[in-house]
Amino acid sequence: MSEYPPGSEFELIRRHFAPLSVSEEGAYQLDDDAASLSISADKELIVTKDLMIAGVHFISDDSGRTIAQKLLRTNLSDLAAMGAAPRAYALGVALTSNLRTNWLSEFADGLANDQSEYGITLIGGDTIFSSGPLFLSLTAFGEVPKGCAIRRSGAQIGDLVYVTGTVGDSAIGLMAAMGELTKLPDWAKKYLIGRYQIPEPRVKLGKLLVGLASATTDVSDGLIADLGHICSSSNVGAHIDLKDIPLSSAARNACALDSKLIAKVLTGGDDYELLICVPPSVSTKLLNKAESVDVKLSKIGKIVDGSDVSVFSEDKTQLKFEQQGYQHF
Amino acid sequence: MSEYPPGSEFELIRRHFAPLSVSEEGAYQLDDDAASLSISADKELIVTKDLMIAGVHFISDDSGRTIAQKLLRTNLSDLAAMGAAPRAYALGVALTSNLRTNWLSEFADGLANDQSEYGITLIGGDTIFSSGPLFLSLTAFGEVPKGCAIRRSGAQIGDLVYVTGTVGDSAIGLMAAMGELTKLPDWAKKYLIGRYQIPEPRVKLGKLLVGLASATTDVSDGLIADLGHICSSSNVGAHIDLKDIPLSSAARNACALDSKLIAKVLTGGDDYELLICVPPSVSTKLLNKAESVDVKLSKIGKIVDGSDVSVFSEDKTQLKFEQQGYQHF
Repeated sequence: MSEYPPGSEFELIRRHFAPLSVSEEGAYQLDDDAASLSISADKELIVTKDLMIAGVHFISDDSGRTIAQKLLRTNLSDLAAMGAAPRAYALGVALTSNLRTNWLSEFADGLANDQSEYGITLIGGDTIFSSGPLFLSLTAFGEVPKGCAIRRSGAQIGDLVYVTGTVGDSAIGLMAAMGELTKLPDWAKKYLIGRYQIPEPRVKLGKLLVGLASATTDVSDGLIADLGHICSSSNVGAHIDLKDIPLSSAARNACALDSKLIAKVLTGGDDYELLICVPPSVSTKLLNKAESVDVKLSKIGKIVDGSDVSVFSEDKTQLKFEQQGYQHF
Repeated sequence: MSEYPPGSEFELIRRHFAPLSVSEEGAYQLDDDAASLSISADKELIVTKDLMIAGVHFISDDSGRTIAQKLLRTNLSDLAAMGAAPRAYALGVALTSNLRTNWLSEFADGLANDQSEYGITLIGGDTIFSSGPLFLSLTAFGEVPKGCAIRRSGAQIGDLVYVTGTVGDSAIGLMAAMGELTKLPDWAKKYLIGRYQIPEPRVKLGKLLVGLASATTDVSDGLIADLGHICSSSNVGAHIDLKDIPLSSAARNACALDSKLIAKVLTGGDDYELLICVPPSVSTKLLNKAESVDVKLSKIGKIVDGSDVSVFSEDKTQLKFEQQGYQHF
């Protein structure tokens, strides 16, 4: 149906994808109808799936390498939010004819880089050709001690709420990538766009949260929306102090130029940082664990009786935001 | 971004998809970052993933119900080919604005029907919105006794080659659906189009092949191409007798009107029947197993020394086909 990519689906898989599968025996070098995964008796398998489509989840002229990394990392972030260690993934790719000749090599290169960084292996998938936009699907598998997956539903009144890293970078980075924020210095733009393109899933910390966190989720739809998911699943409310929300220097710079951007920080999403609820009694232990894997952790609020997420300014005024998070539709 | 479907992603999941997840506790009613699957110590998990896109894998005006069934069944067929019993699946849907109002209800209804028919449960996934064609992704999980997954690579010289059901219906059915084959009687068109829209994965038989079949695959790319995959994985060749290829009455009718259609039968694909290789010593046992689950089985050839699939007519002439199977690109 097209000149690109050259060769049959089988040749393409052998060339670009089979080398990514060698460390899982049950991947059968991607040469069978399906793959096989053995799980040891004391573990359970954690399964997550994310779709990405050009123009919605990434910018079409992003390199194959960064697109691959974002695809894998958004799924790794979901595994981390459950406390799971990465194990394997299945990949679906609908290629299009307008891709650069070396796109697939770049894409496989991005996957190879992150496989070795995060300890995960390709075990199977499907490659098709489409006239529509570039479409990607990834199903990731992690492992957690049996019965120990961290849920959104375990938050208790009195728990402290922590967030990893900094939030808002990705949403502001997308604006910068779209040519907005013209007054922002180049170093800040570059940093923020980089955060949008290649998130850093908190895989090392995620595994350490098992038995410690009462509830966890990752910030994908937006800080307020995702904390709201914890609240509705746990039948609790949350209070957040705006002054405690951790911002990068670049995001701080952008917010100083336009104070309305603080709404983007709280509702913009795509951060892939972890929101973590813990009882106050284990907060020191949590901070030590985070330090042991070199992850910055900020206390941003607490779980309260109620059903909503309330954000307070330094003078204790409650702030209102028009949009609670990224709306998928 | 669009009026359809109404409500947020979360409402849509709660309404249409969460009810499909109730029988797997680890699906968490689709209310968490990921799902959890416990696998008993004597089993291994089989993982397969298929993508489907409007205009390539189904006709855009097919009902949501039949599209859902085809999506699930093509994956179930891969599980059957490995000897696996269905367990669970994760679903990715990129919806478009031009879908009928009740499309998603029909789609969920098709999934519900096949979940109960084949014993499989939704455990998670992702729903997004796209301006491109309707795009679907499904990752299916099955279980097989540990170490017993049936591979493509186990065929031995001297094995007999069997195929379930009838082949060619789907490829000829697609031609009928596209308005070709005008001379074909309506009953035959209807039957063949139905076979294209809703394949019948050999799930019951697949499970019974464990410990019996030396190699299995499903006919998705085309009989010759898929048997070719067994041959290349097993380093063997195969001889097929054209007269033994099982045809439905409708396909026989179509081939009588146009003798060139026999090439479609052998190379057309999308049949989702099983190709099964067994040593002659267990062929009776295989036939008994197939009868026990009411599946028709036809011996179509044998595994030989060599590397290719050769097809012979009744007078022992070797036949040549231009296209060995469905080319994905």
